[in-house]
Amino acid sequence: MTDYIDLAGTPQTFGDTEAQREVRENDRNYVFHSWSAQGAINPLPIAKGEGATFWDYDGNEYLDFSSQLVNLNLGHQHPKLIKAIQEQAGRLATIQPALANDARGELAKRIVEHSFEGARSVFFTNGGADAVEYAVRMARHHTGRQKVLSRFRSYHGSTGTAITLTGEPRRWSNGTLDAGVVHFTGPYAYRSAFYATSPEEEAERALAHLEQTIQLEGPETIAAIILETVTGTNGVLVPPPGYLPGVRALCDKYGIVYIADEVMVGFGRTGEWFAYQGFDVKPDLVTFAKGVNSGYVPLGGVVISEEIHNTFVDRSFPGGLTYSGHPLACASGVATFDIFEEEGILERVRDLGERVIEPRLRQLAEKHKSVGEVRGKGFFWALELVVDRETREPLVPFNASGEAAAPFNAVVAACKQAGLWPFAAGNRLQVAPPLVTSEEDLVRGLDIIDAALDVADSYYTGK
Amino acid sequence: MTDYIDLAGTPQTFGDTEAQREVRENDRNYVFHSWSAQGAINPLPIAKGEGATFWDYDGNEYLDFSSQLVNLNLGHQHPKLIKAIQEQAGRLATIQPALANDARGELAKRIVEHSFEGARSVFFTNGGADAVEYAVRMARHHTGRQKVLSRFRSYHGSTGTAITLTGEPRRWSNGTLDAGVVHFTGPYAYRSAFYATSPEEEAERALAHLEQTIQLEGPETIAAIILETVTGTNGVLVPPPGYLPGVRALCDKYGIVYIADEVMVGFGRTGEWFAYQGFDVKPDLVTFAKGVNSGYVPLGGVVISEEIHNTFVDRSFPGGLTYSGHPLACASGVATFDIFEEEGILERVRDLGERVIEPRLRQLAEKHKSVGEVRGKGFFWALELVVDRETREPLVPFNASGEAAAPFNAVVAACKQAGLWPFAAGNRLQVAPPLVTSEEDLVRGLDIIDAALDVADSYYTGK
Ligand SMILES: Cc1ncc(COP(=O)(O)O)c(C=O)c1O
Ligand SMILES: Cc1ncc(COP(=O)(O)O)c(C=O)c1O
Repeated sequence: MTDYIDLAGTPQTFGDTEAQREVRENDRNYVFHSWSAQGAINPLPIAKGEGATFWDYDGNEYLDFSSQLVNLNLGHQHPKLIKAIQEQAGRLATIQPALANDARGELAKRIVEHSFEGARSVFFTNGGADAVEYAVRMARHHTGRQKVLSRFRSYHGSTGTAITLTGEPRRWSNGTLDAGVVHFTGPYAYRSAFYATSPEEEAERALAHLEQTIQLEGPETIAAIILETVTGTNGVLVPPPGYLPGVRALCDKYGIVYIADEVMVGFGRTGEWFAYQGFDVKPDLVTFAKGVNSGYVPLGGVVISEEIHNTFVDRSFPGGLTYSGHPLACASGVATFDIFEEEGILERVRDLGERVIEPRLRQLAEKHKSVGEVRGKGFFWALELVVDRETREPLVPFNASGEAAAPFNAVVAACKQAGLWPFAAGNRLQVAPPLVTSEEDLVRGLDIIDAALDVADSYYTGK
Repeated sequence: MTDYIDLAGTPQTFGDTEAQREVRENDRNYVFHSWSAQGAINPLPIAKGEGATFWDYDGNEYLDFSSQLVNLNLGHQHPKLIKAIQEQAGRLATIQPALANDARGELAKRIVEHSFEGARSVFFTNGGADAVEYAVRMARHHTGRQKVLSRFRSYHGSTGTAITLTGEPRRWSNGTLDAGVVHFTGPYAYRSAFYATSPEEEAERALAHLEQTIQLEGPETIAAIILETVTGTNGVLVPPPGYLPGVRALCDKYGIVYIADEVMVGFGRTGEWFAYQGFDVKPDLVTFAKGVNSGYVPLGGVVISEEIHNTFVDRSFPGGLTYSGHPLACASGVATFDIFEEEGILERVRDLGERVIEPRLRQLAEKHKSVGEVRGKGFFWALELVVDRETREPLVPFNASGEAAAPFNAVVAACKQAGLWPFAAGNRLQVAPPLVTSEEDLVRGLDIIDAALDVADSYYTGK
């Protein structure tokens, strides 16, 4: 029986310890890993993936509630996406950015057509971080201003400017690589910095704080505000009613460019093509990556408004990269649009999000004391775990590691043990399955979370 | 007859003006291009590529002496490389960096095994710029120092830190995005800044200048020196004898990390796996991209010395990206090693470089007064064009554009008219064909350059 195909193209069965040993050995001997102490990790070798599931070499099966890094929107090995890559590889794998290419032009067209009114063009990059770098560059050259405002509790990538924009611990030891960045506090009703008692009040007060920050920093020095439409890794923070339109109004008032970072939430995650479309707001620049082609080929980019595009009609845009508009990557983006339409992906995200995921998560919050808050939209949710609902003290402290993180790690381990790969961050179990996950698998995964929350409950210290 | 396959998978013949019109229209309507005033460009739609040749929709054929952006080392559509991509797509297109993957581990192993003695691991990125960003970050955390020295006349990419390191006009309007960068002057014997009269003297004096710069900036503040082993876009500047070992000695003396940027010259361009292997020098970190898989899938990375790797065994490396070690990209890297070995690529680069390219270019320099200098190695050469051999005044001024650039543009146009796509930069015709280009095609391309140099000669004003 064939379980998976190895690198040499040979069919293999699970349980071959030799194959697994070799993968593990090469990894430990030669691969340097992101965000890690190299001596403290022992990455699990994966033999195969299909839809919402992946398998290790022993045949253990994991239901992927993390969509890898929230990029695998169409699941593993979607046949039409694979076919599009294989066909484009057979036609023309690559061509330089300065020439014109059919796949590149077609994908840019589809993206613009599915974007905000007044969207004009797309600048393609290799991933999310460089999309952010170039969006900021466009805003700076467009406005002639230097400062960029971003939120605490945000992640915008890890290259020089992107890591400085990032408002969480991954930035800390990198210092300030881009001196033009200023951080401000966004809305987070569950832990309001503004002593708000309702989402509406949180929005209002967060906007007042943002306007004050703008005034104190000097409006005419600020090129852009960058916001994840729904904050991703840092908590699935859904903006409260009125917040994003309020940011738009402040941008208009002060001549500031609004950059929506949709690297994680673009392409269906919240049930819209782009998440901002569900929040009644029109950005000037939109960064995307991940969902554009489920990460099958590295790809990212920036959607550009007519007004900002026009700045660079006569004036040269001072930026570029060898693989901008890579044909192989773009062809898989085109296929993504086809698949979304043929399979009614947005409709199913809205339907299953509302009908299956949300009600069950709300029920878990009732059942498990350790669930402080449930929040989210579509296929993107967070369970914020606490040891006391009254004080809202988190299950583990902010930025905990080692022993301090043990309670949360125990919850995550319970999920993995039961065959669920969650999206775990801080004190939150986040739910971000592939958008093609079957209803049965969603229920099965939520059952596993239900059981794992017993572990979280065991740490509960409140009433 | 089938000339090419369109995006829908339909066989087409050249000359279909409708197909061409659509590609051009989508490009102009929706694609934002690198390094350009969007209103000033009209990118040529390309229908097909094969080996060292590509074709526009009218069937015009171009012999690619630029390897696209000096990335297409194995030419267009190399069957084994395409097959590796198609097979890996069928097995497992992607998996997140935190898990272990066979293709990723195998490529890391091959790269380390072909690297300097003491190379330990590989951190994979999406392209050249982010490879540079992360190499610099490693050096900073390894040394605890902040400054990085780079050369004028260099290109290191276009994201925040990489564009600041870049020592040429593309940096100018971007300001200083990374405040830790210092530029110095490297060796360039043909236009010596040090009044040197021989390559040896140039090396010696450039090293004295570098050491003085180190001393004046403060040795204990300098994390790294980054150098293109052979400066690429800025002139195919081959380091004079002793220069690179001298830099190594200065790095050792002052505890500075030596970063070799081999994004353009790595993987066979100069007839070695890595160009530094031809210059008797051992770097600490090596950035690569392009040639690692001919750019068929976006991929780059950093080769890391044992010593620097060890810094991050217990301490976390503060950087990462969603597509680090992308399986589809890595599989094409593994195939690249196989192809290089099976087809004796390094041997043919050395042989044809010495036997066909160099002698012919030297002969062109004798024949055409406008050729001020010929320099290069392997499949990487530059003809520096001048209007006067005595004064060495360049054919067009530094950073010329518009009218001022017309003489050089006329030379380039003559090449393209005759079916040759050159690597044109500043006042230089650079020769960087795919490493698989046939001897006949090399000769044919050099013939076209010969003819185009008549145009350059027509601007000659010297004796
Ligand atoms: C909102 C957001 N922006 C940017 C990035 C950076 O993307 P990449 O990892 O492709 O550089 C991420 C990655 O998770 C993200 O979630
Ligand atoms: C020496 C060198 N470093 C870095 C880069 C940047 O690579 P990329 O365009 O993939 O970001 C280039 C690109 O030409 C290069 O030649």
